[in-house]
Amino acid sequence: MTDNLKSEFTVEPWRVRELGVHPGNLAQSESVFALANGHIGVRGNYDESTPNGLLGTYLNSFYEERPLPYAEAGYGYPEEGQTIVNVTDGKIIRLLVDDQPLDLRYGVVRHQERSLDMREGLLHRDLIWETTAGTQVHIRSTRLVSFTQRAILAIRYSVEAVNKPVRIVMQSEMVANEKLASTSKDPRVAAALKDPLKPEEATSSGNRSSMIHRTRRSKLRVAVACDHEIHSEDGNDLHSNTYVQPDWTRTTVGTELQPGDSVGITKFVAYGWSSQRTLPALRDQVDAALSAVRHTGWDSLVAEQRSYLDEFWDGADVEVDGDPVIQQAVRFGLWHVLQAGARSEGRAIAAKGLTGPGYDGHCFWDSEMYVLPVLTATAPQAARDALSWRLSIADLAEERANTLKLEGIAFPWRTIRGQECSAYWPAGTAAFHVNADIAVAAARYVHWTQDEEFDQEIALPLLVRTARLWADIGYLGTDGRFHIDGVTGPDEYSAIVDDNVYTNLMAARNLRYAAEAAERWPKAAKELKVTEAERAEWWTAVETITVPYDSERDVHMQDADFTQHRVWDFQETHDSKSYPLLLHYPYVDIYPRQVIKQADLILAMHWCGDEFTAEQKARAFAYYEPLTTRDSSLSACTQAVLAAEVGHVDLAHDYATEAALMDLHDLEHNTKDGVHVASLAGAWLALVCGFGGMRDHHGQLSFAPALPEGIERLAFTIRWQGCKIRVEVTHDRTIYQLEDGPDAHTTIKHYGRKFTLRSGKPTSRATKTPKPLTPRPEQPVGRAPMRAGSGG
Amino acid sequence: MTDNLKSEFTVEPWRVRELGVHPGNLAQSESVFALANGHIGVRGNYDESTPNGLLGTYLNSFYEERPLPYAEAGYGYPEEGQTIVNVTDGKIIRLLVDDQPLDLRYGVVRHQERSLDMREGLLHRDLIWETTAGTQVHIRSTRLVSFTQRAILAIRYSVEAVNKPVRIVMQSEMVANEKLASTSKDPRVAAALKDPLKPEEATSSGNRSSMIHRTRRSKLRVAVACDHEIHSEDGNDLHSNTYVQPDWTRTTVGTELQPGDSVGITKFVAYGWSSQRTLPALRDQVDAALSAVRHTGWDSLVAEQRSYLDEFWDGADVEVDGDPVIQQAVRFGLWHVLQAGARSEGRAIAAKGLTGPGYDGHCFWDSEMYVLPVLTATAPQAARDALSWRLSIADLAEERANTLKLEGIAFPWRTIRGQECSAYWPAGTAAFHVNADIAVAAARYVHWTQDEEFDQEIALPLLVRTARLWADIGYLGTDGRFHIDGVTGPDEYSAIVDDNVYTNLMAARNLRYAAEAAERWPKAAKELKVTEAERAEWWTAVETITVPYDSERDVHMQDADFTQHRVWDFQETHDSKSYPLLLHYPYVDIYPRQVIKQADLILAMHWCGDEFTAEQKARAFAYYEPLTTRDSSLSACTQAVLAAEVGHVDLAHDYATEAALMDLHDLEHNTKDGVHVASLAGAWLALVCGFGGMRDHHGQLSFAPALPEGIERLAFTIRWQGCKIRVEVTHDRTIYQLEDGPDAHTTIKHYGRKFTLRSGKPTSRATKTPKPLTPRPEQPVGRAPMRAGSGG
Repeated sequence: MTDNLKSEFTVEPWRVRELGVHPGNLAQSESVFALANGHIGVRGNYDESTPNGLLGTYLNSFYEERPLPYAEAGYGYPEEGQTIVNVTDGKIIRLLVDDQPLDLRYGVVRHQERSLDMREGLLHRDLIWETTAGTQVHIRSTRLVSFTQRAILAIRYSVEAVNKPVRIVMQSEMVANEKLASTSKDPRVAAALKDPLKPEEATSSGNRSSMIHRTRRSKLRVAVACDHEIHSEDGNDLHSNTYVQPDWTRTTVGTELQPGDSVGITKFVAYGWSSQRTLPALRDQVDAALSAVRHTGWDSLVAEQRSYLDEFWDGADVEVDGDPVIQQAVRFGLWHVLQAGARSEGRAIAAKGLTGPGYDGHCFWDSEMYVLPVLTATAPQAARDALSWRLSIADLAEERANTLKLEGIAFPWRTIRGQECSAYWPAGTAAFHVNADIAVAAARYVHWTQDEEFDQEIALPLLVRTARLWADIGYLGTDGRFHIDGVTGPDEYSAIVDDNVYTNLMAARNLRYAAEAAERWPKAAKELKVTEAERAEWWTAVETITVPYDSERDVHMQDADFTQHRVWDFQETHDSKSYPLLLHYPYVDIYPRQVIKQADLILAMHWCGDEFTAEQKARAFAYYEPLTTRDSSLSACTQAVLAAEVGHVDLAHDYATEAALMDLHDLEHNTKDGVHVASLAGAWLALVCGFGGMRDHHGQLSFAPALPEGIERLAFTIRWQGCKIRVEVTHDRTIYQLEDGPDAHTTIKHYGRKFTLRSGKPTSRATKTPKPLTPRPEQPVGRAPMRAGSGG
Repeated sequence: MTDNLKSEFTVEPWRVRELGVHPGNLAQSESVFALANGHIGVRGNYDESTPNGLLGTYLNSFYEERPLPYAEAGYGYPEEGQTIVNVTDGKIIRLLVDDQPLDLRYGVVRHQERSLDMREGLLHRDLIWETTAGTQVHIRSTRLVSFTQRAILAIRYSVEAVNKPVRIVMQSEMVANEKLASTSKDPRVAAALKDPLKPEEATSSGNRSSMIHRTRRSKLRVAVACDHEIHSEDGNDLHSNTYVQPDWTRTTVGTELQPGDSVGITKFVAYGWSSQRTLPALRDQVDAALSAVRHTGWDSLVAEQRSYLDEFWDGADVEVDGDPVIQQAVRFGLWHVLQAGARSEGRAIAAKGLTGPGYDGHCFWDSEMYVLPVLTATAPQAARDALSWRLSIADLAEERANTLKLEGIAFPWRTIRGQECSAYWPAGTAAFHVNADIAVAAARYVHWTQDEEFDQEIALPLLVRTARLWADIGYLGTDGRFHIDGVTGPDEYSAIVDDNVYTNLMAARNLRYAAEAAERWPKAAKELKVTEAERAEWWTAVETITVPYDSERDVHMQDADFTQHRVWDFQETHDSKSYPLLLHYPYVDIYPRQVIKQADLILAMHWCGDEFTAEQKARAFAYYEPLTTRDSSLSACTQAVLAAEVGHVDLAHDYATEAALMDLHDLEHNTKDGVHVASLAGAWLALVCGFGGMRDHHGQLSFAPALPEGIERLAFTIRWQGCKIRVEVTHDRTIYQLEDGPDAHTTIKHYGRKFTLRSGKPTSRATKTPKPLTPRPEQPVGRAPMRAGSGG
């Protein structure tokens, strides 16, 4: 990770630009340039579709089932998996220039620039291409996936003749069942993904065409329709025609251009899917969406997009003076977090958002613990939607708990639709912390929004039903402490451990918030059959939860036995080719050692930081740093937050840089499969919770700013209980401002001291220069983070 | 297990007889009546092949490969599995009686008796069958798999007309690629097992025919040839002919019989297989074996069999007066142990022997820990062969250790050929105790035989190479003790635990015996690169091995955390339908509880009993009994041994009964897949180590007899250092006798007191009535063992 990686992208505050053609980088750039709105996701493939790294168009929660094979099966192993489907590709516009199809592998690229504008919400492309016969054309295309009309993808595409008269044919296509290079060796996986869509209907009328398909096993139906506006230089109608086949449609426009003349198409594509609605209903739905967007028109659609984003950035932006790399990266992170969740509306937020097929398109716990904290503070409606989705799958989670012979509900470790899809039981049936992650995220949402309807109707049942799992799997030991044995915490280099600190503390919060919510909503709680005895049991667990401590080493233990084990031999694995360890060592080597994939105790010290003293945090940070490999992309941001808290602000800066550049620099060499939404959210966490020192323990908002040398000024805005709070930190001063409503006020803490912040009355306080209690820790050999400032 | 199960079999000292026809019991009886010699195994299917429960003919280590599928793969997971192949079925003799094929589902069975004679080594069948037309025939068949000519299966078959003249056609067949009912849902398993044999050659000459086949993936070649003698009443030649097809051959004999007349066939079948030898070589090999056995002839073959078995029983028999059920069962157990190992000669002894396809035909650790102790004491050459096989796969085990990034060698958890075939990593890469089980078995063989050639050439390399694994995975902790973390012990209801007592103590023995052997054979040890430093390291581990003790509860812990966990809620699972737990509860429920599948600490107290005091054993037995479900067939015998030692002799009697009746009473409802060789061996262990109190710690033979009320006299013979020791125990006296060689003598212990036993000088000592230190313990609700005497 110390490699001084070079990015193919420019460093600019509000844009991500790629200049030229980078064939080796194609799949990564398709993820970086993917456009999505939480409902539709479209990879940044070239308009002409080929060459490509990986073609991809996704609809949130549109999946195919596949059998999960086991050479040695066990009780409760899930038998069916779910895989996100690459649906009908509606964005293709191919071009024939004289006799030659546009393909960047042939002819000469005189100029190409692709540019993502994060304020406009548009992906631009500017290309001057010369055929092998020397004819140049200038192509401009702009693509958007609309935040305001969630069914809509739109593309404006134009061609200009440059140096010679030229015959032009534009072919606007939709293609289903695109052949993809298989990435799995398992024939059954490949089988499930080959031709996943069964054609049901394909029709056209004028330049409007539509296709309806259905998945073979999951029986989900998808409809796609597109329509076109054709723009000729002279305003004359151009000849066009439309073909329709079961798996593709094509609208063709041909003309001849003189140098300086141009011709263009605006293509509107509408997507819809359903597991229940009839074919005619779905056919009409996408046609209606098309009619609506044609009524809006391209210019207004672009204006709506800008307006939506202005509103978002107004309450979400982070300014970083002095570090242009992080400045761009944190906005890029927020952009992708928004794209993943904005319009998911009752569906999951997947680990890769809708930018690629990585992790089969599954949603994990990091949705609640990395992405939702950011959305709660910046786009609360999206957080609400994601938590509503969790409640919508609670009955499936109850079935899962029944299967596991447990009380309450057991949320899936990985899923698209709600059913557990993990085939590795130490994760899929032991990483129960996902339950608490969801419950605490619901409580957090309530703290941040004071949304009483949500509190009663969504948070309460989520909290109560998850709490019952903890009450069942935990127990009061003979030592009078509440224990939870045999679980897997966040760190995947340990499994099936007793009293994992993160799990225990999060479970305790889950139980506490459940008890409190039941007290707030006695009637609703009664409907959920919460009794006084049950609440009392929960409070006992909260008060006696076990937090293992190694008094010999004077440090907290990640779990009951952690520090008793041998330390991993990092000298032996100093070669960077040994990482990630899980690809080079068996679990049996890894699990019983002191070696950590990702922050776990340190994560607990972030989110449950009120349970530890400053000294305990400093000692734990010092102890665990040399054991932590950061083999997970979820680690660096958390290490940044804690490093800042314990006074290692420059190290925090390094970690923040690593988290922020995960995808722009492709640090884990798998951005091709989609961006790491949680790590991108982590860039925001690193800045706001790290350098801003923001915490929200039990709903008390507090700040403890601390800037590294390389950042001159950090400013961020968050949405808090219906207002906006803007925090501006320099090395000397921190200024707090409250916006919205003349009488608004809230009580926050600055370095632990409460004060009331009132609307329109900025409050300035001194920023402290932190002093670490321990020397800057070392990481495992070869695993020091990228240095801040080295990545631009 | 308290069900008062009824067996279909008679209780007789030397025979197992089934009277009548028991269609529901067919597959079980085929396993019970399976004949094998360690090389060939033939299930007890009817001669006419149909109806059958499961057709099966096996050759030791003749397997097919199949891919092991993983929905979620991990580093070091084996990719190829091995499955025993049902090879060419050479035993079929069909019969046409007038117009009707003999099939017990039609017509009337007037009489049927099948009888296994364990002294003769023959399976007899006596059948009077009446066609739907009322014609009766009397069929007598005798089948043997020869111990003296290991390639040979032979059948004598005769038909007599009873009440009417009758036309008879006998069809003696060999059939390859028999269609079996698939027992796996995995299509790839089914694919591997469907038509596993590719025909290469089929020929005949006279009534002799042969077929050669090869497996598709593992490329093993099998040759089978058969020949026939035809016996007619009048000595006249009968018309016969032989057909040959790629997958079958048929020799037909037809005649007409008057009442009282009979006709018969003697069929000799020879099997051979090789991974290396050419087709002509293999063809000649089986033809030579056929010629040899024809030269011997049926009567001499039967005599050889009897003579082989006389010699075996002379040094192995156990007499049990007062309990005819156990009397028969212990001989039945010895019979199957002998059948599994007698002529394996450099191949594995599988968990099911060669009696069925259970566990894919794999060999596990119980070969060394249950079967070899019996063979070492009764048929030492077979034990030597099995251990030689382990050395022959040591290089594969070294490759496996390399894959796991470990020093030394890592023997497979389950295998046929030597490669790890376990797809469940907490077993396949963590149940390292198999290494020590093998090493200790080698040392035990040396103690029992004083075979110096074996000691140097086989035991030494086995001990040294396995010891190196322990030196690598164990470590000296800061507490000055040697620890082994993250392993799975024998009890499969825990996994990946620290300091499993059984593993630690067996590893310590492994290390000690390795160090001692290296000291005995310095030159050979030098070739293995054993250094003084290495030996010193081993001795340190031996001296500081961790044995976790719970001082609060004053009892040993099965592993470092065992007694810290919650006790399983046995009340909730009191229903016998909840067992075995692993089929009804997920691992995540089971692992972190105090619940035990099979003796583990108690197993350590048997085999490493010198490490514990009598009081510790009594307390541990009392503590662990209520936690032990006996969901594994390996448990009851060990519990019998310890129950006897701690004075609960009647409970020991119950457990001994359960172990002994595992297959005769089909206690686990899976005898159809093959007999439980280890549990059958366990019946001997229960009697000899339990009631005989025999131990062999570090080569010192000792006895501490203790009889239960239900047994009046127990006598057993063992082969010890080239002599035979006969021990005869009554409630009053124990008489020791040494046989072989006029000057032979040995030092043994009787209740801890040494004395010298001399050839021809029986020594009589008093038998003590044991007094338990604790009350008779309870088992989990519904899991008390079958009561002794109730199973007859």
